[in-house]
Amino acid sequence: MSQLIECVPNFSEGRRQDVMEAILAPLKSKKGCYLLDSRADVDHNRLVVSLAGRPDAICDAVLKAAKIARDHIDLNVHHGAHPRIGAIDVIPFTPISGISMEKCVELAHSFGEHYYNELDIPVYFYEEAALKPERRRLEVIRKGQYESLKADVKNPDRHPDIGKPELHPTAGATVIGARKFLVAFNVNLNTTDVEIAKSIARHLRASSGGFTSVKAIGLALEEKGLVQVSMNLVDYESTAMYRVLELIKAEAARWGVTVNGTEVYGMVPSAAILESSAYYMQIDDFKRDQVLEIKLLELMGKEEDA
Amino acid sequence: MSQLIECVPNFSEGRRQDVMEAILAPLKSKKGCYLLDSRADVDHNRLVVSLAGRPDAICDAVLKAAKIARDHIDLNVHHGAHPRIGAIDVIPFTPISGISMEKCVELAHSFGEHYYNELDIPVYFYEEAALKPERRRLEVIRKGQYESLKADVKNPDRHPDIGKPELHPTAGATVIGARKFLVAFNVNLNTTDVEIAKSIARHLRASSGGFTSVKAIGLALEEKGLVQVSMNLVDYESTAMYRVLELIKAEAARWGVTVNGTEVYGMVPSAAILESSAYYMQIDDFKRDQVLEIKLLELMGKEEDA
Repeated sequence: MSQLIECVPNFSEGRRQDVMEAILAPLKSKKGCYLLDSRADVDHNRLVVSLAGRPDAICDAVLKAAKIARDHIDLNVHHGAHPRIGAIDVIPFTPISGISMEKCVELAHSFGEHYYNELDIPVYFYEEAALKPERRRLEVIRKGQYESLKADVKNPDRHPDIGKPELHPTAGATVIGARKFLVAFNVNLNTTDVEIAKSIARHLRASSGGFTSVKAIGLALEEKGLVQVSMNLVDYESTAMYRVLELIKAEAARWGVTVNGTEVYGMVPSAAILESSAYYMQIDDFKRDQVLEIKLLELMGKEEDA
Repeated sequence: MSQLIECVPNFSEGRRQDVMEAILAPLKSKKGCYLLDSRADVDHNRLVVSLAGRPDAICDAVLKAAKIARDHIDLNVHHGAHPRIGAIDVIPFTPISGISMEKCVELAHSFGEHYYNELDIPVYFYEEAALKPERRRLEVIRKGQYESLKADVKNPDRHPDIGKPELHPTAGATVIGARKFLVAFNVNLNTTDVEIAKSIARHLRASSGGFTSVKAIGLALEEKGLVQVSMNLVDYESTAMYRVLELIKAEAARWGVTVNGTEVYGMVPSAAILESSAYYMQIDDFKRDQVLEIKLLELMGKEEDA
């Protein structure tokens, strides 16, 4: 495999098993496209899928899955804690090896054209693939969610990057882009006061003086009787997981609130975990290739290439 | 590769670069034997090598390396902080996949016979391969080190398992065996009082009521002006790294001493690190195959098998 990418499509369905299985089927059966992980969340009502493999194989499989999602999800009756504007809400492409960020941007643009032509769902481009600077940020594109965007899409500021200025009547719009590897990291707090999670999330965000590479929202987890700071770490190399967790603990202490548990949602690169292990265990000079499996498979890969 | 083992030969040379390179050469060039890692320690005066691969390839390469070590290391002039009885001090075999512990014991026994015939170095069997129950424990075999064993070897209690009751005149004896994966984990303490490290090490050991799967000694690191609790975790699944580290912190606090840093020496299975990460970061239900590289390479391996 000379070019390897990751792709994490997010579908707005986390409750109906039959629909989720139908969406996953084409992602499991395509040669060259590896389904790393898929996790549904009932509170978020969302299915997050991690794929890795060849760009062509992944694009083909994701298009098939998106057709199924479009035909089975109606955003007009969809409810969930996670913001969304589409049945297929976001499709990010991430370089892993043998491919540059620039090539992933080109891939996102050509896939977006093909996607609109095949599915009739308008497309916004975000992050590195954004065509307008403000659309680098997903939250700008998703402002007001599906319910507001239905009307706001007529406003020239909110026209899609591809497609007519109207949403698909049931599937909304899709945000497609290219970005660095994103770690989804949630921290649950021992309180039912959602304002505490919201306040902490606000202090973590760049827009209010927090970390440059953390996106955070505060949510109530009503089933669990907890609140959650739900985060995307968009550059785990510059903003390590442990640093974010420790700041959340410090902020929560202001209200006498403690961490109940955390969640790594979906896939995580080994480097992100090892960096935080090294911090907590004070491991000096710990190297990724001291991990047996990573080193052995790297050596076996090299031998096969030779 | 249908049978995969790990082998971690320890050589009593951590200072002379040319000798270490000569020892490593046959371990690098043998097809089917992968050199995962090698680390020399000047204070210990010891070279620890991690190999993984096919049993036959590893045995062949280790025998060649041992011949070179025998011819270049003279224990009569060797000094180092780490206990040892041989130029090639220990050779443990560890099952990784497709091979049972029982088969690794058989492998150790047949390799031991061949080793004595080829090198004229007497052999003791330890851990799972021990022929006498007390020899399961390496410290029993190594009691008094090379300097005492030279005379004590005549005592029937200390006769080698293979070979005449006399040590090789320069290379001593070698301890060969089969065991679970061993994590070498050192904790450095902010003090120059070696008695503190020794006391903590004593409390960690099974023989004085500590953990059943931890071997620990206390050492002075004179170059660094610190002391070290140097450990082998012989069953990281039952005695997790974080649990050992936290107990050391608690014991050290008795003297107002803190941890300066820790060291993972050589290779570590991903599961050992991930277990401790999950503890410190309070990650609920974290799975090994959420780590991108581990999952992807597993899927690629399955595809190749198919």
